[in-house]
Amino acid sequence: MILQIVGMKNSGKTTLMNHAISFLKERGYSVVTIKHHGHIGEEIELQSSDVDHMKHFAAGADQSIVQGHHLQQTVTRKKKQSLREIIENSVTIDCSIILVEGFKEANYDKIIVYKNNDELRSLQGLSHVIGKIETNHPRASNQLEHLLNKLIKDKGMN
Amino acid sequence: MILQIVGMKNSGKTTLMNHAISFLKERGYSVVTIKHHGHIGEEIELQSSDVDHMKHFAAGADQSIVQGHHLQQTVTRKKKQSLREIIENSVTIDCSIILVEGFKEANYDKIIVYKNNDELRSLQGLSHVIGKIETNHPRASNQLEHLLNKLIKDKGMN
Repeated sequence: MILQIVGMKNSGKTTLMNHAISFLKERGYSVVTIKHHGHIGEEIELQSSDVDHMKHFAAGADQSIVQGHHLQQTVTRKKKQSLREIIENSVTIDCSIILVEGFKEANYDKIIVYKNNDELRSLQGLSHVIGKIETNHPRASNQLEHLLNKLIKDKGMN
Repeated sequence: MILQIVGMKNSGKTTLMNHAISFLKERGYSVVTIKHHGHIGEEIELQSSDVDHMKHFAAGADQSIVQGHHLQQTVTRKKKQSLREIIENSVTIDCSIILVEGFKEANYDKIIVYKNNDELRSLQGLSHVIGKIETNHPRASNQLEHLLNKLIKDKGMN
């Protein structure tokens, strides 16, 4: 299952993403997250080049992978891709759920998060919206869990 | 083409890797690097959780991907794999050359790097050795370039 969490900058997307991850992991699902770096003109922040795989990257490698005991990190020079391309080419583990932060224009099931009506209005017209959560609402987390449970049931994953 | 650079800790592997990367990139090859984290009992160092994809990872995601304008970073919870498995499952770009630091026991073409005869002796018995470079030698970089040129020619990549 693929689920997007979309909203304006500082609307609380990451907080809801993190709640969704914990909620799904507690239920035993394998979770991949994909985040779109939304700040125009700024590149993503890289790990310091004190570590060897970043030295390889600094020397010009197009992709640099480091393998640890239970963890693996990769950094890649790669032109911006569509969400579909990222899912097809860059998800390298079997997983039951892909949670996506951002990528407003993509066409997967979406939860809109917002802080006020102005934000909600500016997100009108997005496709595949299955729910809307006001992040200032005291029961925002419960609303999210309710939507997740419904999706899990609808997709036959429970 | 897949080429391993192997040697003892602090023998100069990363310096030679970096020289190989620059040399190959200048010649227009696409290069992927894979590094084995060799320190027993220590895990690889992760990027700080100030960035959102690391927040997702800290919340429990099994794989977290962030997409920027020309760069992409991924961190994954994944049990240690063989080099063959990493090459099959985790290299996500088309590339002409995979340079590997470490993974002594794997079976690809290998350059042994060493600082002294004790180190060289302790690496005896490794398979697929195509060259040996003493990293303290003033012409170590030239020896590396010579070996790379020979490999490129042998593999019909020039």
